[in-house]
Amino acid sequence: MLSDIYGPQDIKRLSVKELTALADEVRQRILEVVSKNGGHLASSLGVVELTIALHYVFDSPQDRIIWDVGHQCYAHKILTGRNQQFHTLRTFNGISGFPKVSESPHDHYNTGHSSTSLSLALGEAIARDVNNSKYNIVAVIGDGSMTGGMSFEALNHIGHLKKDIIIILNDNEHSISKNVGALSEYLMRLITGGTYNKLRRKSYEFISRIPKIGPKLFTLFDRIEARIKGIFIPSSFFEDLGIRYFGPIDGHNIPMMIEMFNRISKLNKGPKIIHVYTKKGKGYVHAENNPAKFHGIGPFDIKTGKPVKKSSISYSEIAGRTLVDLAKHDKKIFAITAAMKLGTGLAEFEEKFPSRFIDVGICEQHAITLASALAKNGLKPFVSIYSTFMQRAVDQIIHDVALMNLPVKLLIDRAGIVGDDGETHHGLFDIGIIRSIPNFVLLSPTNGNELKDMIYYAASYNNGPVAIRYPRGGDDKYEHSMPKGLLKIPQLKAYYKSQRPMIALFAAGDMLSMAVEIHKKLHSYNIKSSVYSILSIKPLPVKQIEFIMNTIPYYIVLENSYANGGIAEYINSQLDRSMRHKNLFNVAFPDSFITHGKVSELLRYYELDSDTITHKIISMINTEKNSHAKKPLRSISSSK
Amino acid sequence: MLSDIYGPQDIKRLSVKELTALADEVRQRILEVVSKNGGHLASSLGVVELTIALHYVFDSPQDRIIWDVGHQCYAHKILTGRNQQFHTLRTFNGISGFPKVSESPHDHYNTGHSSTSLSLALGEAIARDVNNSKYNIVAVIGDGSMTGGMSFEALNHIGHLKKDIIIILNDNEHSISKNVGALSEYLMRLITGGTYNKLRRKSYEFISRIPKIGPKLFTLFDRIEARIKGIFIPSSFFEDLGIRYFGPIDGHNIPMMIEMFNRISKLNKGPKIIHVYTKKGKGYVHAENNPAKFHGIGPFDIKTGKPVKKSSISYSEIAGRTLVDLAKHDKKIFAITAAMKLGTGLAEFEEKFPSRFIDVGICEQHAITLASALAKNGLKPFVSIYSTFMQRAVDQIIHDVALMNLPVKLLIDRAGIVGDDGETHHGLFDIGIIRSIPNFVLLSPTNGNELKDMIYYAASYNNGPVAIRYPRGGDDKYEHSMPKGLLKIPQLKAYYKSQRPMIALFAAGDMLSMAVEIHKKLHSYNIKSSVYSILSIKPLPVKQIEFIMNTIPYYIVLENSYANGGIAEYINSQLDRSMRHKNLFNVAFPDSFITHGKVSELLRYYELDSDTITHKIISMINTEKNSHAKKPLRSISSSK
Repeated sequence: MLSDIYGPQDIKRLSVKELTALADEVRQRILEVVSKNGGHLASSLGVVELTIALHYVFDSPQDRIIWDVGHQCYAHKILTGRNQQFHTLRTFNGISGFPKVSESPHDHYNTGHSSTSLSLALGEAIARDVNNSKYNIVAVIGDGSMTGGMSFEALNHIGHLKKDIIIILNDNEHSISKNVGALSEYLMRLITGGTYNKLRRKSYEFISRIPKIGPKLFTLFDRIEARIKGIFIPSSFFEDLGIRYFGPIDGHNIPMMIEMFNRISKLNKGPKIIHVYTKKGKGYVHAENNPAKFHGIGPFDIKTGKPVKKSSISYSEIAGRTLVDLAKHDKKIFAITAAMKLGTGLAEFEEKFPSRFIDVGICEQHAITLASALAKNGLKPFVSIYSTFMQRAVDQIIHDVALMNLPVKLLIDRAGIVGDDGETHHGLFDIGIIRSIPNFVLLSPTNGNELKDMIYYAASYNNGPVAIRYPRGGDDKYEHSMPKGLLKIPQLKAYYKSQRPMIALFAAGDMLSMAVEIHKKLHSYNIKSSVYSILSIKPLPVKQIEFIMNTIPYYIVLENSYANGGIAEYINSQLDRSMRHKNLFNVAFPDSFITHGKVSELLRYYELDSDTITHKIISMINTEKNSHAKKPLRSISSSK
Repeated sequence: MLSDIYGPQDIKRLSVKELTALADEVRQRILEVVSKNGGHLASSLGVVELTIALHYVFDSPQDRIIWDVGHQCYAHKILTGRNQQFHTLRTFNGISGFPKVSESPHDHYNTGHSSTSLSLALGEAIARDVNNSKYNIVAVIGDGSMTGGMSFEALNHIGHLKKDIIIILNDNEHSISKNVGALSEYLMRLITGGTYNKLRRKSYEFISRIPKIGPKLFTLFDRIEARIKGIFIPSSFFEDLGIRYFGPIDGHNIPMMIEMFNRISKLNKGPKIIHVYTKKGKGYVHAENNPAKFHGIGPFDIKTGKPVKKSSISYSEIAGRTLVDLAKHDKKIFAITAAMKLGTGLAEFEEKFPSRFIDVGICEQHAITLASALAKNGLKPFVSIYSTFMQRAVDQIIHDVALMNLPVKLLIDRAGIVGDDGETHHGLFDIGIIRSIPNFVLLSPTNGNELKDMIYYAASYNNGPVAIRYPRGGDDKYEHSMPKGLLKIPQLKAYYKSQRPMIALFAAGDMLSMAVEIHKKLHSYNIKSSVYSILSIKPLPVKQIEFIMNTIPYYIVLENSYANGGIAEYINSQLDRSMRHKNLFNVAFPDSFITHGKVSELLRYYELDSDTITHKIISMINTEKNSHAKKPLRSISSSK
């Protein structure tokens, strides 16, 4: 049946029974592709029926369906004409794992971060009303995303402006880890039911089923109820904010949802929230049992749910284990995450030190400021956070941490490009942001052991904030052991020293391995180079770099970051000006948003692979030689 | 009486009657100093009684009193040993206008931005409980600050962890402009009173007044009420989040507040919120009548409330007027502010185009993402925002605006140092942040006419996002007129061209006037210079700069920004590398947080005044000449 679905219009033709069968096929298709390509499985499986019901009732793309975060959009993509290409999910030049405007008119926004859908929906409603248009605006938002402060900002404004918006609250009790927070407990109470809500739900369900006059009765009942409530009942959370609440209803029951959506879309009078409860991972036993593990996952075996290839120990795990080691002997160590317990390797920490583990939900701002209060009181908070999500808390990092020089420790995970998740998830801004904030120390390890040492160092460093940035991926050669307990981290480290080299390669983080490759390739062309790793981005080891550069004609800097605001710029501005011309070019990402695909594919596409870089170096050095430095070459920055 | 108050212990000795008299004296003292020095008057006047009651009941600094934002802390400063120095408020080397740890143990955090107090309070509570300590933690937060998403993130977590925290909700119906939002309407309903809340308030008041057994009865009543409510009454907004609600009570009634705070501080069982209503500007008729005008104000005449000196037209006003002009002829123009209508010059816009004026409350994140949805639908949203508050929405600017290349227009007001408000309010990060985001155009006018032209240009520019940064202050020579309607903004402009100059001065924004001063001073030393303004920071006019620099030995870049991440770095990284050594040094702020004081004082203190810069230029050029360029000088960066 799925093969006949080219868009929402084909769904509308199906009977209710066929819709249920369609759900099975969609689920199968998702499972099949994600087990091969990896992706966000659990949340996408959870909303298959919801997606079908939405496309059955609403007229996308005229009606706007806006998916919060967007990782749950696989069924939506399959049902809006992208089933044929769905096998290319998350591959280079293939379909994105998130909504993407350029892919389909059914995707209204490129997203990937949480809690933006309500603001977008309100903007859509304002624009619609200004243009005197008539269509529905539907935001689908998880209970996790609802805890993000931005959602509340939007709810507060939506309730005030009273625009016609339908909010589907997809309550699966999980953001990415198991959900936390008072709101989540409140929603649970709504589902398990206070007397009034239960009664109300039953009544709505009963009325909806009455043939023919049901719809009219529904509207009437709704009106009376609103009237009565205003008088007698101090209203609930959402209604206090001026938003009508409906539900909770079963998000796997297609007919009931269709009924509800149909009715409510006709109530055109202000904002409504429909509370739908779903099961993350629905229909795939392994995901149902362990939704967090199957939130974002690599290729796996469908039968067993086991990952296809055993991965090496990840940097996240190394960080987590190191924190556990530290916490054993230092009761001041706290680990804080914003709904990323598994992603940042903190599961063991939580298990062993539950009272010193804090998951704040999808609330990066709160996480940072909470940490500053802990640090102010002599505790040692480590905030583990993805580089891309750290962008959410820039002001808190400036205003609440750095301004008072508080020793908060940021573990910036997934720094640099992340591969398959693509443009919304790459961590390319953190260097530019952190290095421009006074009082910060910014470190960047090139392997697991250095990461461990740096975390130990950060734990003992009390003079101000420290950030450590490390990439997605791991370290094959890492073996966990107690660290040496370094009290001083080397700022710069020599890897290969040549006699009278022509060029120095300064690499930060995971770009060291590429520097080594280039070093070897240059060697085969008879060009001698030396390789250094920059372990401390701030403070920058300028003196050491100057000492090295004194005798070397050229240098390049390799960093997994945007060139704009990056390390090479920083060096260039700090270096003695007599040496500044020695910088041949920067190996860093150009000034554009970077697409998805394997890391190696992306490096090649942006001409940042070792072959291209090697040839560029050779050609620049040669040209310069030949021109006898009469007319110095314009430096080439790697741009696309 | 005030002259005998050296700290909270002296307040506790006073009788209730004396406390009321003390309030009058404190109010007088605030008025006296702020009328001379300028400052945040209305909010500080509003909490005089509240501050006295808090210090009467709680034992600061052992008990933590945390002021949200902190602009309302004047009474607190006066009463915690800083009355003698209070006349130095907001002056260079004087008392800060915000809480400051280095000033007093009664100030626990340096703050200035909104909505952080609840996160800080929760962090304090976690630390207290880990240390098995016993003291009260009191966060004082306005209803405006409560609308910021971060507050909700913290509330959600506080309700979950059930820590002993007292939240004083200071409800004055104003954030900075008149408050907006559904929460504010809800609070109003609580004050005007549902039957239940009214009854409850009356009961609490009645019981509190019973001598001797009052306290016990209060606790008992509280217990019974909690029990009953759990059964019968669907709870209210805060209680749904697990936070006990008390109030509302009159925030100018000292005895009633003392009673309430005393009782509640003894209820040690989880988080409580006390809803206190106050009047902004209380006790000073001009401020009561126009609290927004007296939110942050320069020196004024106490009798009339009129400003002491007629100020020139501010950049904010020029921006506002220009938007009004534009909006007359273009129905797509929208103006968006996050509670800064007056500060950003939008009062007239609101008056003339109420349906296209949007004040979202203190919600910068929501403001930006809302704007992207408007832009996506073909409208032209201008978001007027202070540089320092823009830091709150960095991820939204990246993820919701730039990623989709949506034509949102940012008017970045108060860019550069702002003077008296100091470290939390300087706008020194925006260049580094914005220029590192792909797709952005970043402009910087040097006078009012250029600002006007740039806004017109931005209105017609549909290829992506545009940001225009302009400083606090104004343009004396500005006369409002219709703009030329430039379709192209010059990226670089020559001001003074000399024959065979020794040095080129490239200035951005308000640093142009300093460049001109330096130009003249250099001239008197027989050193010829040329002056250029950089109007487009991104895209950077590299070609033009290179063309100019081809024949000039040295250059400096002047910018009202941090050097780290700033324009000089950008130029240095983009310029042909053969010219990079020509950059003598950067005129920009060093890598530290900048204190408060007059702009001229700050420039002198950081050695960024025209005299110092001129001498530095001369000495560097001379040294270099004398050394015959054998041993090139290390470039001096202006650091402190």
